[in-house]
Amino acid sequence: METTSTKAFGTEAAETPLKGLNIERRVVTENDIEIEILYCGVCHSDLHTARNDWGGTMYPAVPGHEIVGKITKTGSNVTKFKIGDLAGVGCLVDSCKTCESCKNDLEQYCLNGWVGTYNGEDKHLGGQTFGGYSEKIVVKEDFVLKVPANLDLAAVAPLLCAGITTWSPLRHWKVGKGSKVAVVGLGGLGHMAVKLAKGLGAEVTLFSRTPDKIQDAKDLGAHNVVISTDENQMNKVGGKFDLIIDTVPNIHDINPYVTTLNTSGTLVLVGYLGPLDPFLNSAPMIMGRKSVAGSLIGGIAETQEMLDFCGEHNIVSEIEIIKMQDINEAYERMLKSDVKYRFVIDMATLK
Amino acid sequence: METTSTKAFGTEAAETPLKGLNIERRVVTENDIEIEILYCGVCHSDLHTARNDWGGTMYPAVPGHEIVGKITKTGSNVTKFKIGDLAGVGCLVDSCKTCESCKNDLEQYCLNGWVGTYNGEDKHLGGQTFGGYSEKIVVKEDFVLKVPANLDLAAVAPLLCAGITTWSPLRHWKVGKGSKVAVVGLGGLGHMAVKLAKGLGAEVTLFSRTPDKIQDAKDLGAHNVVISTDENQMNKVGGKFDLIIDTVPNIHDINPYVTTLNTSGTLVLVGYLGPLDPFLNSAPMIMGRKSVAGSLIGGIAETQEMLDFCGEHNIVSEIEIIKMQDINEAYERMLKSDVKYRFVIDMATLK
Repeated sequence: METTSTKAFGTEAAETPLKGLNIERRVVTENDIEIEILYCGVCHSDLHTARNDWGGTMYPAVPGHEIVGKITKTGSNVTKFKIGDLAGVGCLVDSCKTCESCKNDLEQYCLNGWVGTYNGEDKHLGGQTFGGYSEKIVVKEDFVLKVPANLDLAAVAPLLCAGITTWSPLRHWKVGKGSKVAVVGLGGLGHMAVKLAKGLGAEVTLFSRTPDKIQDAKDLGAHNVVISTDENQMNKVGGKFDLIIDTVPNIHDINPYVTTLNTSGTLVLVGYLGPLDPFLNSAPMIMGRKSVAGSLIGGIAETQEMLDFCGEHNIVSEIEIIKMQDINEAYERMLKSDVKYRFVIDMATLK
Repeated sequence: METTSTKAFGTEAAETPLKGLNIERRVVTENDIEIEILYCGVCHSDLHTARNDWGGTMYPAVPGHEIVGKITKTGSNVTKFKIGDLAGVGCLVDSCKTCESCKNDLEQYCLNGWVGTYNGEDKHLGGQTFGGYSEKIVVKEDFVLKVPANLDLAAVAPLLCAGITTWSPLRHWKVGKGSKVAVVGLGGLGHMAVKLAKGLGAEVTLFSRTPDKIQDAKDLGAHNVVISTDENQMNKVGGKFDLIIDTVPNIHDINPYVTTLNTSGTLVLVGYLGPLDPFLNSAPMIMGRKSVAGSLIGGIAETQEMLDFCGEHNIVSEIEIIKMQDINEAYERMLKSDVKYRFVIDMATLK
């Protein structure tokens, strides 16, 4: 298959910092779109993949799945996009399109395994897929999103992962006007959950362990902040919330949040994958028909819906723009939660 | 308040067997119905309450919340029932009727606390409420159910708790024709879950630890039986079920069942209240938008709906009729799961 050499930033091993390198991109096939990447958001998954924190990283690894840019080439079968259009690519670049999940626009739950934007199985070239820390990307039309022209393009990038990851559960659990939504954690995901839930008309509460986030949360649109370490404040919101979006990526006790769910309410984990330690207690769940659920990013149609909604409601991520060369320092700062709320790489700096 | 002395069977202390005793029942007020109890099912909660296994038992304790009988008196405001009608009483005899849950016909989740049929707070006489191990009961009309005349009355009794406890999640999670439902545990609740799910048109699978229940499950209507200790069989049903009703009353590992849920599927705990040990793993939940939930009995309108459905579909519980005097022996047999599938007391034996 014909390829072109492409400048990228990545790493050859878990222990070494990211650096400039060259990768091959396929030349567009009839169903493909080539995008010149203008901005790429920096997700925690990027860092975990680069460092092989979850195992299974194939090297060289080129992270980045919050991609926005301009279309530079289109295959002959492409109908929905043209050269010069703005476009976005999120966490998925392919799926089987035939299983029950895919048929229901839930490509993120593809039963035959979806292809991640990076560290996935490249079905065209073999080996692994390479993500958005690069000058361009070639993606099947079906997995390319339209980007509203009225938004700050750099601040749109994080919508492709942090945005859709919180949007999908808000929609699946039918949040709308008057819903009472709480958000646990105010990072990249949490700050988007606050903005999107508010955009949907919900009354939004942030759970925070410390009072230092009260002003930030209110600036982002939260109606209330509850200090989760304050028993009195927690008791006051007992049985209150229809939906809790828990974005915390580390192990933590979810039992205190479950008690703040309303009858038939749901707590959705979107950040932490692993054993729920301490033990989740089923008693309050049974006594109020409460659920604990998980949710993973979102499907392509839903991602487009979210982008369109953000265009209509002027919602973008809060970002700090960095140079490509500053990515290793940015990773260190992310580990200390020292970012409000998402780093976005200006890909012009890669040139 | 005027009362009448009523024969009952109960216990004065956690350590002593149940025996005959007399209790007071209020004379019907304008909104009340008096029911001559003909049959009363025996629920595990009866035993736990009699023996104070959960703490909080008020003595004397008269258990029984699967009550069917004939109406003998009606208050002046009663409009839906008349003397001579068959009637049922389940786990609830009162609730606030004003909170959000009650307004949504979810009296079992009454935010101000519902009144249990036994060991609840008797708002008329003070002290505790007394259950169905007695010759009659007086209950507010709103909490009395109509019983289909075409069913075996003794076998209807367990529908009032075991039936509604499994019916409510089947309905809440929208089980219908073509749904794939699995049931964990084949006791009083489990056997009703199988019958009701099948009645609703679902394809029903029983999870059993040992093969000795295969024939029983099929006789009850299960389409498939999966031996949960057989890894091969468990792998074959990976990602299959829309809803799992887990009726096991003891601590057990639910993780293997979660992996058998389909995308967006839910496992509902109806039997076990306590810490989920071993740790519930959130990873498969996130990777397939799966939920773990709890559910408690059902509301009055839903209980009526279930009874009507059972009348139309000729569904009743499988029972073994006992004499009132055999209740202590029946409790011992229940602890050994030596009952197919519910004991029902012939209350004529109390006279």
